[in-house]
Amino acid sequence: MSEQLIKHFARFVEIKEANIPGILSFFQPISLLKKENLLREGSICTSHYFVVKGCLRLFFVNEKGVEQTIQFALENWWLTDYMAFQNQQVSNFYIQAVEKTEVLAISLSAQEQLFLQFPPLEKYFRLIYQRAYAASQLRIKYLYHFSREELYEQFITAYPEFIQRIPQYLLASFLGFTPEYLSELRKKKRS
Amino acid sequence: MSEQLIKHFARFVEIKEANIPGILSFFQPISLLKKENLLREGSICTSHYFVVKGCLRLFFVNEKGVEQTIQFALENWWLTDYMAFQNQQVSNFYIQAVEKTEVLAISLSAQEQLFLQFPPLEKYFRLIYQRAYAASQLRIKYLYHFSREELYEQFITAYPEFIQRIPQYLLASFLGFTPEYLSELRKKKRS
Repeated sequence: MSEQLIKHFARFVEIKEANIPGILSFFQPISLLKKENLLREGSICTSHYFVVKGCLRLFFVNEKGVEQTIQFALENWWLTDYMAFQNQQVSNFYIQAVEKTEVLAISLSAQEQLFLQFPPLEKYFRLIYQRAYAASQLRIKYLYHFSREELYEQFITAYPEFIQRIPQYLLASFLGFTPEYLSELRKKKRS
Repeated sequence: MSEQLIKHFARFVEIKEANIPGILSFFQPISLLKKENLLREGSICTSHYFVVKGCLRLFFVNEKGVEQTIQFALENWWLTDYMAFQNQQVSNFYIQAVEKTEVLAISLSAQEQLFLQFPPLEKYFRLIYQRAYAASQLRIKYLYHFSREELYEQFITAYPEFIQRIPQYLLASFLGFTPEYLSELRKKKRS
């Protein structure tokens, strides 16, 4: 399971064979059942998660008790509540497995140690954060710019693999639709 | 003007006195008049900008010809169109000076060279991107969660300095209001 993480590092930076065991010693494997929580609202966000297999979602529960998903993470994606993680504070989010999922977790202090011992991983995370921030800036543009129907179009074009794997009601929540509206939209596209 | 950049680096990482001239040689100072463009839609986004003095805004022009501001940057903030910058592509955004502004610009290739020559700056940018991404993730939550009125409340609490400096019509555009609605909201708050 850890081989995949090393492969992902190696896509961005050079990893010496001899350093692999040392690097991996900073990570903790966690297996989750479908709908199992990795993080709960009100608990300290201690870790940063790399998805080895499966799918996570980040959501909050609004005052009406409705779950609002704002992010998904498939294989090779990183996810956490970044503000709560960097400040080691209580989170306002949940992170839950959409399907049976395996992750590798690293704590903030372990991540800082990792950078000191293996400087190429500082570069790796600089690149990961840089790319995530770039995508996020564009997403904010889309949230301002696109109608809900256009958001759906953009999403299925950019991430076709999600449509196959993510239950309709979660996709609807992510896009800010009711499940009924999403179902109508899909019918319209097929016809 | 470059002293301020060094001070900002030194808040996050150790900078050796002897390295300062070498570090600064990667940056280009640019002075902008109020409303002068630093980046235009349709041009390649070559640089990353550090605001030394003044204020920048990032906006796009929608199909109705209306400018939609999605981000501001005051002193000590970094700004660019991150997706276009990292891919060295044509931008869909404008970056414009809200007031008389001084920035330091660095190109993508210079930034990569800077990291190779001065590794502590790799860490600095990892931290800058990490914090920016954390703030951006929270902002996406707010865009899903808050009514426009709540967004305004949240914004003036988090960034009181903006309210003083940024023209009302730009603030309205950023918050997705008409200027008239913002003016009504402000009257309501005062009464």
